[in-house]
Amino acid sequence: MTIPNSGVYLDNNATTRVDPEVLTEMLPLFTEHFGNPSSMHAFGAAVGGKIEWARKQVQALLGAGYDSEIVFTSGGTESDNTAILSTIEAYPKKKEIVTSVVEHPAVLALCDYLEKKRDYKIHRIGVDSKGNLDMDAYKAALSDRVAIVSIMWANNETGTIFPIEELAQLAKAVGAIFHTDAVQAVGKIPMKLADSAVDLLSLSGHKLHAPKGIGALYVKRGLRFRPMMRGGHQERSRRAGTENAPAIVGLGAAAHLALTHMAEENTRVKAQRDRLEQAILAAVPSCFVTGNPDNRLPNTCNVAFEYIEGEAILLLLNEQGIAASSGSACTSGSLEPSHVMRAMGVPYTAAHGATRFSLSRDTTDAEIDHVIAVVPGIIAKLRSLSPYWEQSAGKAKDFAPVYS
Amino acid sequence: MTIPNSGVYLDNNATTRVDPEVLTEMLPLFTEHFGNPSSMHAFGAAVGGKIEWARKQVQALLGAGYDSEIVFTSGGTESDNTAILSTIEAYPKKKEIVTSVVEHPAVLALCDYLEKKRDYKIHRIGVDSKGNLDMDAYKAALSDRVAIVSIMWANNETGTIFPIEELAQLAKAVGAIFHTDAVQAVGKIPMKLADSAVDLLSLSGHKLHAPKGIGALYVKRGLRFRPMMRGGHQERSRRAGTENAPAIVGLGAAAHLALTHMAEENTRVKAQRDRLEQAILAAVPSCFVTGNPDNRLPNTCNVAFEYIEGEAILLLLNEQGIAASSGSACTSGSLEPSHVMRAMGVPYTAAHGATRFSLSRDTTDAEIDHVIAVVPGIIAKLRSLSPYWEQSAGKAKDFAPVYS
Repeated sequence: MTIPNSGVYLDNNATTRVDPEVLTEMLPLFTEHFGNPSSMHAFGAAVGGKIEWARKQVQALLGAGYDSEIVFTSGGTESDNTAILSTIEAYPKKKEIVTSVVEHPAVLALCDYLEKKRDYKIHRIGVDSKGNLDMDAYKAALSDRVAIVSIMWANNETGTIFPIEELAQLAKAVGAIFHTDAVQAVGKIPMKLADSAVDLLSLSGHKLHAPKGIGALYVKRGLRFRPMMRGGHQERSRRAGTENAPAIVGLGAAAHLALTHMAEENTRVKAQRDRLEQAILAAVPSCFVTGNPDNRLPNTCNVAFEYIEGEAILLLLNEQGIAASSGSACTSGSLEPSHVMRAMGVPYTAAHGATRFSLSRDTTDAEIDHVIAVVPGIIAKLRSLSPYWEQSAGKAKDFAPVYS
Repeated sequence: MTIPNSGVYLDNNATTRVDPEVLTEMLPLFTEHFGNPSSMHAFGAAVGGKIEWARKQVQALLGAGYDSEIVFTSGGTESDNTAILSTIEAYPKKKEIVTSVVEHPAVLALCDYLEKKRDYKIHRIGVDSKGNLDMDAYKAALSDRVAIVSIMWANNETGTIFPIEELAQLAKAVGAIFHTDAVQAVGKIPMKLADSAVDLLSLSGHKLHAPKGIGALYVKRGLRFRPMMRGGHQERSRRAGTENAPAIVGLGAAAHLALTHMAEENTRVKAQRDRLEQAILAAVPSCFVTGNPDNRLPNTCNVAFEYIEGEAILLLLNEQGIAASSGSACTSGSLEPSHVMRAMGVPYTAAHGATRFSLSRDTTDAEIDHVIAVVPGIIAKLRSLSPYWEQSAGKAKDFAPVYS
């Protein structure tokens, strides 16, 4: 499978191409079966059934016990915001929240706001140099004052996976609700939420070959829930607003495909990623893999190239038709290294050159070959222009935290 | 132009068919130009420009002074909720809200919640038997204690238009922020927000032949704003979450088409609506038009057929391939007559039979002919089965309010 506009797209953690099969399922909902599913006529009637089919596909992907536990939202940010706001409203006497320093802005920005404007105490748990959560600090932060714990399943920049089940059980033991932003993990890690202590889980359609503008929030049966969006009674009164039927059906189709292809993501895609990574490490001096190489998403490779700027790397990669990223798309435009790199204590001189290659099942071996062929030259070219390179080369390799 | 699945679709106030031209504009964004617009590579670069093009189309449709006043959201409900929540957070000392009894649930349900859970005083202004706002009550409710006034531009069930500019100026005179849910009015009524006292305006894509799951909130330049969705810096930090690029471009294309076709909606579509209405009134005894026939949307006709059930009418219309509605889709499933009919004091025996036919530029003369041909027979058939019809026929015609 080749990328339609003949480029090499390795930025799948930012967003994925809509699978053509997904689009095919969606199309009739725009111009034929376009009725409002709440309406009492033929134009609406067919739509309701399609939405319930989609809900069952998402349920299956998550291994959830009930399809009614799936609430469709406009995306990962809405799911994250809803999970946290719902819970603190349901438990108004608990004034503490536990999260991590490496969360997505959809969690961190909301927590910053709650701290500043609503007097919540936020525990932001740190990570070590490999991006692993500080479990001692986590346990110390838990108490019966904690309304909700919100910890991501896998990090978007490094792919590092957190021990979600253990974290959830520890949270439940003190009576806290456990939410996980699983936007990067869903479709890549097998899940069985029916047997899990996870109460709330966020996912985003456009990270798994469904369209943008659709996501879901898993809400465990029986959980106290307060809607963020108020109005009509859609989604069992948990999310008001006319159902985004085409995108919901697209998410259902994408969930079905993700389940079908998950083994492939964990073998073929992982092998491609490993080949890319090993080739870069072998050919390019003074670079290293960030995050935990032994426990991360199969599609993600984040390499820090020392003494050069990530933006310059991206520009030269783009000239070669390769799409990658530095940091996350949601924080791009900033001149600072990403908060994830800072949290792991990656030195400034290396964090600035952190480059994420994120693959998908669309990725071909030929594309990987192309990236392997051009990356060493790009890095060498940029370093030849860098005043810091000659005298400093290699120094940052045995890195130590430089951010407090 | 015929409706694709060969039915007569007269439920355009619930949702519209996506215009094929709109879909054509959207398609490349799903599988070709699918990049995250915040990303630094070719897959994302083209998308940003498309989004800004779309923003200018919406600006033009609203007659807004600046494209930066347009914030894309997931739809009308999110826009309504954001407008109200933003304003009360920006003006925390003002603890009153003015709205009307005939608003959409996206406004009413949120106001109910704010009244119950956050101690806001809600002034719900009534309407007369034609659906016109009680201006004396409105003026009496205004004071410097009012944070926000939220009054719809046109009612979704009857099409009755409120005097928005006058209402907005009265609100501004006491220092209140003025929001209007213009979901039904945008694309049907010419607007020039640059010269208006309106501060905030909600619109929904799927009411004007754009897809579901996209909408916009107009935020007048300089207005204090607090986001509802927190996370990344999209939409100038006013609405976090990856931009729903295909749907945004669809909304832009739909806004462009709406502006192009507005004169047609106000002549050809209005003539079709008037012909339909006059034919029904002439052929069917004991029915009347609800709302203000002299001041309403050109596409909307809501007829109350006495002594029969709206649901039964809809079922028989559906058997004839005609899609209409009773009440609004967002409140369907309820056995009560709609809150709008109750607010106008339409008697129970007539309110239950209120049936809305809402046209669009897709509507053909042949379709109107078909509806005119079958409606009298459907009503006569249902009345022949109604135990109340024989003894009561006509009595409700000179109706008086029966709801307090």
